[in-house]
Amino acid sequence: MLNFNFYNPTHIVFGKDQLQELDNLVPKDAKVLITYGGGSAKRTGVLAKVKKELAKSQREVAEFGGIGANPELSVLMGAIEKVRREKIDFLLAVGGGSVMDGTKFVAIASFAEEFAGKEEALLNYGFGPVPVESAVPFGTVLTLPATGSEMNGFAVISNGEDKLPVFSPFAFPKFSILDPVLTYTLPATQVANGVVDTFIHTVEQYVTYAVEGRFQDRTAEGILQTLIEIGKKTVDEPEDYDARANLVWCATMALNGLIGAGVPQDWNTHMIGHEITALFGIDHAKTLAMIQPAVWKVRKQQKREKLLQYADRVWDVKEGSEDERINLAISRTEEFFQSLGIKTRLSDHNLNEGDIEKILNALEKHGMTALSETGDVTLDVSREILKAAL
Amino acid sequence: MLNFNFYNPTHIVFGKDQLQELDNLVPKDAKVLITYGGGSAKRTGVLAKVKKELAKSQREVAEFGGIGANPELSVLMGAIEKVRREKIDFLLAVGGGSVMDGTKFVAIASFAEEFAGKEEALLNYGFGPVPVESAVPFGTVLTLPATGSEMNGFAVISNGEDKLPVFSPFAFPKFSILDPVLTYTLPATQVANGVVDTFIHTVEQYVTYAVEGRFQDRTAEGILQTLIEIGKKTVDEPEDYDARANLVWCATMALNGLIGAGVPQDWNTHMIGHEITALFGIDHAKTLAMIQPAVWKVRKQQKREKLLQYADRVWDVKEGSEDERINLAISRTEEFFQSLGIKTRLSDHNLNEGDIEKILNALEKHGMTALSETGDVTLDVSREILKAAL
Repeated sequence: MLNFNFYNPTHIVFGKDQLQELDNLVPKDAKVLITYGGGSAKRTGVLAKVKKELAKSQREVAEFGGIGANPELSVLMGAIEKVRREKIDFLLAVGGGSVMDGTKFVAIASFAEEFAGKEEALLNYGFGPVPVESAVPFGTVLTLPATGSEMNGFAVISNGEDKLPVFSPFAFPKFSILDPVLTYTLPATQVANGVVDTFIHTVEQYVTYAVEGRFQDRTAEGILQTLIEIGKKTVDEPEDYDARANLVWCATMALNGLIGAGVPQDWNTHMIGHEITALFGIDHAKTLAMIQPAVWKVRKQQKREKLLQYADRVWDVKEGSEDERINLAISRTEEFFQSLGIKTRLSDHNLNEGDIEKILNALEKHGMTALSETGDVTLDVSREILKAAL
Repeated sequence: MLNFNFYNPTHIVFGKDQLQELDNLVPKDAKVLITYGGGSAKRTGVLAKVKKELAKSQREVAEFGGIGANPELSVLMGAIEKVRREKIDFLLAVGGGSVMDGTKFVAIASFAEEFAGKEEALLNYGFGPVPVESAVPFGTVLTLPATGSEMNGFAVISNGEDKLPVFSPFAFPKFSILDPVLTYTLPATQVANGVVDTFIHTVEQYVTYAVEGRFQDRTAEGILQTLIEIGKKTVDEPEDYDARANLVWCATMALNGLIGAGVPQDWNTHMIGHEITALFGIDHAKTLAMIQPAVWKVRKQQKREKLLQYADRVWDVKEGSEDERINLAISRTEEFFQSLGIKTRLSDHNLNEGDIEKILNALEKHGMTALSETGDVTLDVSREILKAAL
């Protein structure tokens, strides 16, 4: 097992009717800014419910909507200015990963005086911590299970064609309310995206090389097995509480630091996927579903031991040669994504060989020339992966 | 899945040579009280190493040793008085569960002015939070993997023949250093106790009734499978790093709130076990190993669905009638404990039928008359369990 740090102070409040805890969770004298996305929070009535709960004490409550998918720095600047101008002292994100990520950036940037007027510079620290000493405290009300943002200190922020990570130990939500019922109204395609996103977050931290991280491996396998068991059901039967509750909790657990502590991590698929989203506007999860199987096909040798373990423990594939077992596990994975209505080929999204060079150029521009758990995925290997995904 | 809260802010620093992080983790101007147990921290040199690290900054460092197994209120009072008198502002527990539990109590009690002179009253709140608003901040350096105390807000404190739980959200360690190498010098019997303790912490939260807590079940099963895989090895080969690292991490994960969130919890075995330890001085884990199989024999019907799942997924028992599979899983469990040198019968510890009434009297005295995940283990059922354990 590798050495590691694990720290995650977010208070999770999980289950039916937990919105009523808001009045206990948000300071009673706070000046609150509610942040949300494209309007579904309004349409579904969640926003009104949140405001009703906040009104139970003497809070001042303002709103900032319009934080879309792949939250844009230019949009977030509006919220940052509002926080500074109106002396907001608590943020409450109501939405999915994009709203939560955007809110994290607002929380960090609003208090970071040395970055005032040059907030863009906060996007230059990669996966290392941004140099801030505090942030506006914030909570979240989750409406879309997928990114795990509700229980970590990471965000991904878009700046034009750049999609960049931001991390800070101050960017953990103080609390996150996870009521599976609030996710019932999601379109099926977003639920399917959430299942795939969670699945690939998990394998990025699991299908690497073996280091005797037994708890981590078993826990990752448990998430994958659960997703396979409940994935199609929660897409097809959105109001089945238990299936949805398991998706919500798995999505949180897949990216809160737990399964990645003390084991190697890949993130190759994510880095290529981010470029595809930035260039072509394809949903994050859908880019991952195209790239992940191709990564395994190209890097079968490097990941052999864990791919065999994955085949055995997750898909119960025990017969055949090593290559046969690995190939079967990869095709089972593709079939699983497809069963949720998610395509697994670049060509399914009308991308062709010519687009591959654009993606490679973007990877090069962002310094993504030594990807994977072993750092040996060069641009040439990425080209191979993209070709395998055609 | 049941509704739940999950909150665990302890910063875990895991791995080889992590003691050198102490200087970053403990405030540099702190007045530190190092707490430890019966002397092994001194004998093994851990205490000296800790003091060397703390001396890297201008800290005042005092010591308080002698916190034995099943930490006694009367002993802890000495530390509480020292903290108050010398205005200690950081505690550092170096040891196993007893030292950590004792230190938690010291942390809570020292600042609780309304309890000054009547600290015993802090033991009256059961599993609910004690009414304190703060505590002396503290960290831990783990030397014995077993209790999970390094990453939770619970302690068990002895007051004569009473063994009582204490909980506070202020009783989470700020940090815990988990270096498996520091546990190499433990006697084999203590390592075996740690394996059994971790195993039974896990099943107390898993072998109950089914509520579709799929992540929780799979994670619990992962801990149990890991313990079965590495248990005997880490007892027999104490310096095998990976086996020991997996024990240490599983012990922490078994009782940090994760696997119990959103699922029923039993703790029947622990409540009976605590009385046996208090009355007869038998090691905590050894009492659990006697009682847990008996609980399953007596409550086979109530736990049927989860016992069958346990037989299938943990022991790979798939053949035979339901009763045969359950019986086989129970005997496999007993054999596992025995393989570590841990006895599984009251009579192995020279307890007989006459002692059962003493244990039942103690349970009655402490109000333990409606135990288990369904609250229907009366004193009569406890008698049956104890008889089955003879």
